[in-house]
Amino acid sequence: MTVKINLPHDNSYEIFIDKLNELYFDTKVVIVTNPTVSGFHLEYLKSKLNAKELSICTIPDGEQYKHMETIESILEHCFTKRLDRKSLLVAFGGGVIGDMTGFAASIYQRGIDFVQIPTTLLSQVDASVGGKTGINNKFGKNLIGAFHQPNAVYIDPSMLKTLPKREFGAGVAEIVKMAVTFNKEFFEWLEQNDINKEENLKIAIQKSVETKAYVVSQDEKEHGIRAALNYGHTFGHVVENETNYNTYLHGEAVGIGMMMANEVSVKLGLMSKEDALRVKRLLEVYDIPTSYKIKDVEDFYEHFFLDKKSLDNKIKFILARGIGDCLITDETSKEDIIKVLKGFSRD
Amino acid sequence: MTVKINLPHDNSYEIFIDKLNELYFDTKVVIVTNPTVSGFHLEYLKSKLNAKELSICTIPDGEQYKHMETIESILEHCFTKRLDRKSLLVAFGGGVIGDMTGFAASIYQRGIDFVQIPTTLLSQVDASVGGKTGINNKFGKNLIGAFHQPNAVYIDPSMLKTLPKREFGAGVAEIVKMAVTFNKEFFEWLEQNDINKEENLKIAIQKSVETKAYVVSQDEKEHGIRAALNYGHTFGHVVENETNYNTYLHGEAVGIGMMMANEVSVKLGLMSKEDALRVKRLLEVYDIPTSYKIKDVEDFYEHFFLDKKSLDNKIKFILARGIGDCLITDETSKEDIIKVLKGFSRD
Repeated sequence: MTVKINLPHDNSYEIFIDKLNELYFDTKVVIVTNPTVSGFHLEYLKSKLNAKELSICTIPDGEQYKHMETIESILEHCFTKRLDRKSLLVAFGGGVIGDMTGFAASIYQRGIDFVQIPTTLLSQVDASVGGKTGINNKFGKNLIGAFHQPNAVYIDPSMLKTLPKREFGAGVAEIVKMAVTFNKEFFEWLEQNDINKEENLKIAIQKSVETKAYVVSQDEKEHGIRAALNYGHTFGHVVENETNYNTYLHGEAVGIGMMMANEVSVKLGLMSKEDALRVKRLLEVYDIPTSYKIKDVEDFYEHFFLDKKSLDNKIKFILARGIGDCLITDETSKEDIIKVLKGFSRD
Repeated sequence: MTVKINLPHDNSYEIFIDKLNELYFDTKVVIVTNPTVSGFHLEYLKSKLNAKELSICTIPDGEQYKHMETIESILEHCFTKRLDRKSLLVAFGGGVIGDMTGFAASIYQRGIDFVQIPTTLLSQVDASVGGKTGINNKFGKNLIGAFHQPNAVYIDPSMLKTLPKREFGAGVAEIVKMAVTFNKEFFEWLEQNDINKEENLKIAIQKSVETKAYVVSQDEKEHGIRAALNYGHTFGHVVENETNYNTYLHGEAVGIGMMMANEVSVKLGLMSKEDALRVKRLLEVYDIPTSYKIKDVEDFYEHFFLDKKSLDNKIKFILARGIGDCLITDETSKEDIIKVLKGFSRD
């Protein structure tokens, strides 16, 4: 099946959700990947991919390498292989590979093309739609980057068979995020269907991608509604940052972040306790963590201001309004947020 | 006077050529500059610029600092000052400052606004139009970067009074480039008028900016005609690279590069010897170097392939066709180029 991402300025592209077909490129191609993905799937990809000249750029596996030095090593590979402005990068891996390959493509010779072949559930449902690329630095996550849309995305769900259970759960967290903020019917479907089953998984990927595509098509550069996709992320980024990006997977931190955001929603009367519990239960089905112990509430709060969603020293929160709808607000009082955070600071 | 740069996708902006007016910005502003420019002009700029919160980011002066570490130091300043997505960078200096500030703005939080206040003749006539931003690396010049258009450009010719004579000449070289490739009438005007005189200088800046704007408006991302603005640059970049960027100013290297390109034009019957001589004479009026001694012709030739204009291992040359017209070609034979280069290798 194919989902079309409609964007202005010739930036539209298609997402193919199926067993990988033969791919033909009449240009130089560099596959950017890491040893883990390459060990499982590189031979399979190479058997499908035909290019004028093909090379492999292997970068270390993990969020801790999502920084400028790795970008420079990708660029160095491209220069050494004498890629020109018509050449193509292939992001072959999870979200980290996708974000970095896209960013490298956006600044190599002022921008060349790239395609994504995401190999984790999280990158298939989330990072594959929307063209956000970037890296982390000591101030926080994804603070340096560019909007650079891929030419196409190829999602092959069969690649998920080798994905560790925890990483699968991290992907489910982003699927739940999409459903809670924009798609009540999809949320109910998720409550009734186990997406560990292959036929359900494909449907869940498609529905997630469609939901995100609907949002991104309306607001490519996140001037408005697209920010709602950061539901769970404002809190989640702080959790990741406090734990030095080495305790939780991104999707797991988002799961915790959604729990915190929902507590704010409940406090402000935007969401019933029952609905908050439904979200919690759904996350628990896939063993996604839903609790986190905050050590210093004031310190946690202060971290928000380094997040790029904070404008004019106001913090923008994405709050679920029941299930299937949401609200972007920078009017939440510090007092209310601190009270909710205190709820996460007790033993 | 004002020149409008018409570009698709809301990228249009205006260039103001006049004594600097009062500027008001209701956002955080960072002025990126170097000690030389700041010593001469920062107090003047600060007396004109009103911002919600203003800070100065000073980076070292010189092309040798046009690399990723300097970009990272600009970004670090922005994070420390907690710039948000509505904040603004002001590029206050020559082409190096403009290219780096623009690039930093393009990747800070996936892109924020910037304006340019160019303080050298070269950056006023050339770098201020077109949105090319970037940095050098060991493989060559401007090989990493982005297309990122400024919101506005403020050209104050009175700032050129403190500009060293050599740097003024380097700017004139780019003015001559614009005239030779696109504007015969302007070239003749330049032969008859001394642009050291203030009233002529302002006209020359305006005509250059208009000529470049005409080209860039047709082809923002250099898929076609815009490449003609690289006249003199394919050769000039190699000259700069061979001399480690510390012997010639960029405009001077372009002057030498135009002489080389014109020899190719003469050899191919595209330009008369007399017209080539007119270009040489005009450059000499402003003491722009027109000769260069190539040590190793084959090595010089090999350098072309690291230039990003080389596609499919073909080198794209911009050749003047008489004066006021030009040709983009990748059909030139290696033999012809080598013969011309040999003419520059003799004592």
